[in-house]
Amino acid sequence: MMANRDPAAAMSAAPTLTGGLVGSVLTRYWLDQDAVRHWSDRGIVGAWVEVEVALAKAQAELGMIPKAAAREIAAKASIDKIDMERIARDIASTMHPFVPLIHQLEEQCGAEAGGYLHWGATTQNIFDTGMALLLKRARPMLLAHIDAATSALAACALEHKDTLQAGRTHGQHALPITFGYKLASWLAEIRRHRARILRASRDAEVASIGGAIGTYAAMAPQGRQVQEKVGALLGLGSIDNANRASADRQADLVNTLALFAATIEKICEDMLFMQRDEIGEASERFHYGKVGSSTMAQKRNPSHAMNLIGLARLLRSRAPVAVESMIRKDEGDGSGNNVMDVVLPEVSILAASLASGLARLIEGLDIDAAAMRRNLAASRGLIMSEAVMMALGPKLGRGVAHHLLYDAAVESVRSGRTLAEVLGERPELADVDLGALTDPARYLGEAADYILTETKTAVGE
Amino acid sequence: MMANRDPAAAMSAAPTLTGGLVGSVLTRYWLDQDAVRHWSDRGIVGAWVEVEVALAKAQAELGMIPKAAAREIAAKASIDKIDMERIARDIASTMHPFVPLIHQLEEQCGAEAGGYLHWGATTQNIFDTGMALLLKRARPMLLAHIDAATSALAACALEHKDTLQAGRTHGQHALPITFGYKLASWLAEIRRHRARILRASRDAEVASIGGAIGTYAAMAPQGRQVQEKVGALLGLGSIDNANRASADRQADLVNTLALFAATIEKICEDMLFMQRDEIGEASERFHYGKVGSSTMAQKRNPSHAMNLIGLARLLRSRAPVAVESMIRKDEGDGSGNNVMDVVLPEVSILAASLASGLARLIEGLDIDAAAMRRNLAASRGLIMSEAVMMALGPKLGRGVAHHLLYDAAVESVRSGRTLAEVLGERPELADVDLGALTDPARYLGEAADYILTETKTAVGE
Amino acid sequence: MMANRDPAAAMSAAPTLTGGLVGSVLTRYWLDQDAVRHWSDRGIVGAWVEVEVALAKAQAELGMIPKAAAREIAAKASIDKIDMERIARDIASTMHPFVPLIHQLEEQCGAEAGGYLHWGATTQNIFDTGMALLLKRARPMLLAHIDAATSALAACALEHKDTLQAGRTHGQHALPITFGYKLASWLAEIRRHRARILRASRDAEVASIGGAIGTYAAMAPQGRQVQEKVGALLGLGSIDNANRASADRQADLVNTLALFAATIEKICEDMLFMQRDEIGEASERFHYGKVGSSTMAQKRNPSHAMNLIGLARLLRSRAPVAVESMIRKDEGDGSGNNVMDVVLPEVSILAASLASGLARLIEGLDIDAAAMRRNLAASRGLIMSEAVMMALGPKLGRGVAHHLLYDAAVESVRSGRTLAEVLGERPELADVDLGALTDPARYLGEAADYILTETKTAVGE
Amino acid sequence: MMANRDPAAAMSAAPTLTGGLVGSVLTRYWLDQDAVRHWSDRGIVGAWVEVEVALAKAQAELGMIPKAAAREIAAKASIDKIDMERIARDIASTMHPFVPLIHQLEEQCGAEAGGYLHWGATTQNIFDTGMALLLKRARPMLLAHIDAATSALAACALEHKDTLQAGRTHGQHALPITFGYKLASWLAEIRRHRARILRASRDAEVASIGGAIGTYAAMAPQGRQVQEKVGALLGLGSIDNANRASADRQADLVNTLALFAATIEKICEDMLFMQRDEIGEASERFHYGKVGSSTMAQKRNPSHAMNLIGLARLLRSRAPVAVESMIRKDEGDGSGNNVMDVVLPEVSILAASLASGLARLIEGLDIDAAAMRRNLAASRGLIMSEAVMMALGPKLGRGVAHHLLYDAAVESVRSGRTLAEVLGERPELADVDLGALTDPARYLGEAADYILTETKTAVGE
Repeated sequence: MMANRDPAAAMSAAPTLTGGLVGSVLTRYWLDQDAVRHWSDRGIVGAWVEVEVALAKAQAELGMIPKAAAREIAAKASIDKIDMERIARDIASTMHPFVPLIHQLEEQCGAEAGGYLHWGATTQNIFDTGMALLLKRARPMLLAHIDAATSALAACALEHKDTLQAGRTHGQHALPITFGYKLASWLAEIRRHRARILRASRDAEVASIGGAIGTYAAMAPQGRQVQEKVGALLGLGSIDNANRASADRQADLVNTLALFAATIEKICEDMLFMQRDEIGEASERFHYGKVGSSTMAQKRNPSHAMNLIGLARLLRSRAPVAVESMIRKDEGDGSGNNVMDVVLPEVSILAASLASGLARLIEGLDIDAAAMRRNLAASRGLIMSEAVMMALGPKLGRGVAHHLLYDAAVESVRSGRTLAEVLGERPELADVDLGALTDPARYLGEAADYILTETKTAVGE
Repeated sequence: MMANRDPAAAMSAAPTLTGGLVGSVLTRYWLDQDAVRHWSDRGIVGAWVEVEVALAKAQAELGMIPKAAAREIAAKASIDKIDMERIARDIASTMHPFVPLIHQLEEQCGAEAGGYLHWGATTQNIFDTGMALLLKRARPMLLAHIDAATSALAACALEHKDTLQAGRTHGQHALPITFGYKLASWLAEIRRHRARILRASRDAEVASIGGAIGTYAAMAPQGRQVQEKVGALLGLGSIDNANRASADRQADLVNTLALFAATIEKICEDMLFMQRDEIGEASERFHYGKVGSSTMAQKRNPSHAMNLIGLARLLRSRAPVAVESMIRKDEGDGSGNNVMDVVLPEVSILAASLASGLARLIEGLDIDAAAMRRNLAASRGLIMSEAVMMALGPKLGRGVAHHLLYDAAVESVRSGRTLAEVLGERPELADVDLGALTDPARYLGEAADYILTETKTAVGE
Repeated sequence: MMANRDPAAAMSAAPTLTGGLVGSVLTRYWLDQDAVRHWSDRGIVGAWVEVEVALAKAQAELGMIPKAAAREIAAKASIDKIDMERIARDIASTMHPFVPLIHQLEEQCGAEAGGYLHWGATTQNIFDTGMALLLKRARPMLLAHIDAATSALAACALEHKDTLQAGRTHGQHALPITFGYKLASWLAEIRRHRARILRASRDAEVASIGGAIGTYAAMAPQGRQVQEKVGALLGLGSIDNANRASADRQADLVNTLALFAATIEKICEDMLFMQRDEIGEASERFHYGKVGSSTMAQKRNPSHAMNLIGLARLLRSRAPVAVESMIRKDEGDGSGNNVMDVVLPEVSILAASLASGLARLIEGLDIDAAAMRRNLAASRGLIMSEAVMMALGPKLGRGVAHHLLYDAAVESVRSGRTLAEVLGERPELADVDLGALTDPARYLGEAADYILTETKTAVGE
Repeated sequence: MMANRDPAAAMSAAPTLTGGLVGSVLTRYWLDQDAVRHWSDRGIVGAWVEVEVALAKAQAELGMIPKAAAREIAAKASIDKIDMERIARDIASTMHPFVPLIHQLEEQCGAEAGGYLHWGATTQNIFDTGMALLLKRARPMLLAHIDAATSALAACALEHKDTLQAGRTHGQHALPITFGYKLASWLAEIRRHRARILRASRDAEVASIGGAIGTYAAMAPQGRQVQEKVGALLGLGSIDNANRASADRQADLVNTLALFAATIEKICEDMLFMQRDEIGEASERFHYGKVGSSTMAQKRNPSHAMNLIGLARLLRSRAPVAVESMIRKDEGDGSGNNVMDVVLPEVSILAASLASGLARLIEGLDIDAAAMRRNLAASRGLIMSEAVMMALGPKLGRGVAHHLLYDAAVESVRSGRTLAEVLGERPELADVDLGALTDPARYLGEAADYILTETKTAVGE
């Protein structure tokens, strides 16, 4: 699960001449290496082989093909013996992404058994079921990263349950919070995403073996049974509606991961702000030797958060095209398939990279409680104006109290004095304990309770 | 040129025939009028009034404000007495969308009770809870339209359970289906969307009264209780995490509606194809007097389907910006709010319009079974080549059978003869019943079963 | 539930306080009121009337229709006499957005001349040419706002040519700049957008009167001449290719406005940062009475910048759907038209609102040079490390110098001392004038020259 | 230029274990192999080396670094000697995409000269200028493919100048056209895109060597001169505004390529329709041995067009995220850079693949003029109703004529008789030559002229 903790080792066999986000050495280190490997050509083609084997087994059990053929197929068909270089050449020459594999599998299994490979199936059945299998196996990797992130968030939230910080809205000091409250709010979003991802992913983890057009025509009346058995053999469900023009489950999953990405982007934007020189409330752990700039020796950039923001945007950009790819003609449409078959591995890799990256980001935070306190004071107590207003409200009325505080705030800004100083001059407040009223630690509402509740519920499924 | 330097003055002369998708008479007729009314200014402001009343009631029950004040507020505060023209003017002059309403409500309730309006709340609490309330009430309208559509689809699918049609993939004849099978597949997608919408909508239907920053600071330690009571009074849930920077539930709902839109767009694209002059398999009901073109008298355009496609695209276009609006700074960020507050009414109106439009489209279909049969014959029986291959497979081996059919297909295209004619000349097929093998009605697989199952499950929640 | 079954009836009670971004009083004040009026129903329908009049004139000049008819049409046809309420009702009942207008124009012109209205044209010719006319007239309004913004930027850039500020990359202090340099960089982007908008807008300002299918069949062999004359009469160009399935010019314009929006969003994000309590380098002008929050009396929110960010995102969200709407079937496709006819007015209004909003934002800036200086010092001189490194480079070599500065930066962070203090202890730097080397004012490069150049080129077309 | 005519050979050295659109053997064959190679890691890093060499040369000419150092750098620094495996490892361990290259270059050049590498520059200067260089060199490849496509379109348009076809709007027969007219309309869009691409690409082909923050601080007062010289050495322009937070030129280029993609998608959608079994007007050339389906032997899929549609959608999906990446903080922001550095190679590869694919698609078209004629007849002459109406208009008035044709169309649909037969019964049309009026070949308007004009202007720049 701790996959990309040592990216260098993982990259050792990385090719140097290719490109693209996943293939290029210039960008590949942004990504979770387990996820990259999972979705490599060998990983994908391997899943197809598994589906073909399961199909033969299922059909043999139902008497649709000879039992001996299925045994032979199960024994001989193997991704390990597939010549991927030859696959590459044959795909390029036939312009078909699947037939070259079938040819090698037929050779592996011999003429007799090989003739029963892919029986009654069409290419997309294998692709769709293979995709479901890969998604299912990607899921625990993703969830483990998410759980690492939520654990880190929960631990940090508890640790900083009482660490005062300025709460800000519209970029301005609003009310005091604790840093733990901020973390618990992040945690809550991530927790909701986890549940969404679990649901959407399970919905998409279904075998789909409806044949050329979804009617099981070549396997009737046992088609749906074959599909169910294939699903059971692979640990997948069985699709209710096997037509090849429906991609709503897959688009739903992409959308769900896009929501998850947006939250991580939000968190990282907050991190960038808190790490700014003038703020300094939290920063990515620095170690001697880390270089921020080829020319500016002092730079301690929030590189990790910036990387995650870029990845999150790339993930989000896949959602609209995935949704658009649901719009398929008639009973099947290759344009839509092509897009979805490219997008799903990308978003799965990106989501895993974001989740593991978030875990590392939170685990590696340097937090400066003193800076938080210093910044909280930057608005000279004005951040406490609601607290004072609410205290005066019952006496003066809410409107009058708002007006009084408004004037005090203007005066504080004008003169540079604190809110307490300005208010202290008002005779009508003579009997009010301004010290207590303007103490941020006393105006945290139910934040601590919430942190306790949220960190408790942060336990999975 | 200095147009909006004085917006208040500019607004006073605002045209009654305004513009925009919702406001313009040129486009408004595309939309579901109930939904338009639901999300009108009066509808939205009315929801805010309800939230303020519920807030006062809840606080009075908890002893936070005087019971008499709450009673007065409940008795006096009313959208019916709100002067919307004055609201319009005051918003334009204050540049604040909410304070003008509070002023009128204070006048309605009198100084005494009015002073307890909006107690401990901030504008966005009212907006968010009001939005939840409006979404909750929009939901049954939307679901009723969806149910009308699924009923129409189910009825039509059953009626055409045995109506033969060419199944097509990649725009080419693939295998035969029935028209009922196509309809049942559409139905299945819509059914899945209904469940998604129900879930996502309920998630978003929560009261959120966390105060200025989500900590209930001004209402502690009873803040969460107030929120729960407000929720109960309005038929809403109570948000788990009241921070103002989380919009994942709302973005999830927008995404879910975008998926729904994509399916309707897919259906309408299929409709456009089936209505083409050369296809003529299904068309929008024509009535004498309907005009397709100002210059081409013969035009019977699929206007309704085209309109729905346009609306679906507009809805889909809102998803990325809604997801992006989740990325909010700190504890609250008006940029994100502004976007979401504009997008949610739009997508709710668009979704209702799409759902009711789909119902009418399906209810108003003219179906031409003879055309379907004629088109099915257009590929001269080639659509049956898999059927023949599967029958020959066990004898000849799947590969050889595929090769034989491939050659036969080439010859059929070359000579213009049917597949049966070409195959009839092959001596090795002398004992095969080609008539039966090339009869589309005998190669429908498990389509009929599926239609029966799907139309049965098409019953709600 | 059966809401839009009878849209005509439903429309009769249409609320005058409608909804939607443009129509709602809750959002309309965000928008440039001139632009809203320009794109109102009356504005759009008025443009169609002008096109019909120009068409008749052009055809009469070419002898295609009687000169008397054209004179009558020019004299009688007028938007001022159009009953817009009746148009609204008739559109809702006929479900056609144009035929109701033609009927009123025929009545205005009488049977004789009215029979020559819309001669050889189809609805979309009028819509497309009317859109071109409205875009052309919107252009000077937009450019004037842009020019106001660039003037304000140029003036402010010159004023702050020497106002020191921390230059930041990746959220961290990098090198010193002047505030004028930042402004000049914004100005440069806006200037480039102005040129792009001018080009794309002109490309789209073309009459397109190709008849039902773009071949001028009903006006041949004088069709293209008619189109040219119509263009000349309306101040438009004449489209080279009149087919109705091409929308690349319009999509190009939308894309161009989206780029413009992104720059304004960038500027406003910078403004939000500079206005933060801890930064305070620049802020939106405050006036006594402006209310930031209904509960926090102290709030001075960057409301204007936040509004503009929301509008910019809404504008950007229209680009993908505009591009998608270029994908039109055959020789014409209503789905694409519908979308584009909705999107173009929206983006035009949004762009005008952004441009005028930017002008006001810059004109209304409060700039705090002292805060800029204070923040510049926040990194204890580390912002000058490149300057020192470059000075030492020739002596020590660039690599060694980078290393020396790196260590000094680490020490400065550890000890809280300034860079100059830390470096002052190094014997090898004994003869170096550290005071001069760490003076930000001496390391501004060619910033001042650039500001002078950029502000000079900021003059139009 | 004929790059991907033999993809198999090009792929021979392709790695088999990677993934992603560009890297995977399952998708890479969709892409133009020259473009893939151009944007490979070796291609990109090679461009960076060239920029470093040019920088040293320029600085030596201006006396900024020793001439000998620049000579040494020019002589020694070479991509051919770069150990890419080591780069990969070092990037993964340092997490910096550029510093590992500098280290190898320093070793290549020796301590003396190596110390003057990258003088006064920052990483992004090299990345941005390298990107400009790669874009500049990608341009002629792209334009050559576009020119091949426009040549093919022009030749085909001339060949089919008089080939009758049904013109269709909203999916319905509208007026007759020629197939050449359709092709010329496609050609016109492509021609306009060519001009846009040329402009946007040139705008982006600029050296940008502003140093850490765009002010040329480390090279003042000769910074801009260095940049100009670097540009001249590499055949690039010199950026007007070197700040690192501006990406409008690059986003503009991405947008422009997205428009281009949309047109190709439109063309391919038309192709899919024309190749349908029931239509058969045009199809992708079939050759014996091409396999459409692993199970349906008869399938002749429009695989090429479908592939291009998928690629076009993927390209379009990059536009919004490119525009969003313009929104960069302060004077530089790695999140935006990261996204743009990933997107630009992708869209450049996709655009080249689309352009070369379009050329091959048009060159490989099988056109069936008989089918076009047959389909034209499918609406029983109703497609000529405008022609008849326009002929009757002057006599009967346009409105009456429209009404007469409307009734005739209804009767034709009801009875299945042709428009001419139905009209022949009307006594008021006794003296009208209905044969001539309903002859599609006589109602082509100015289509032929347009084809001649358009094919003439289809010559470059």
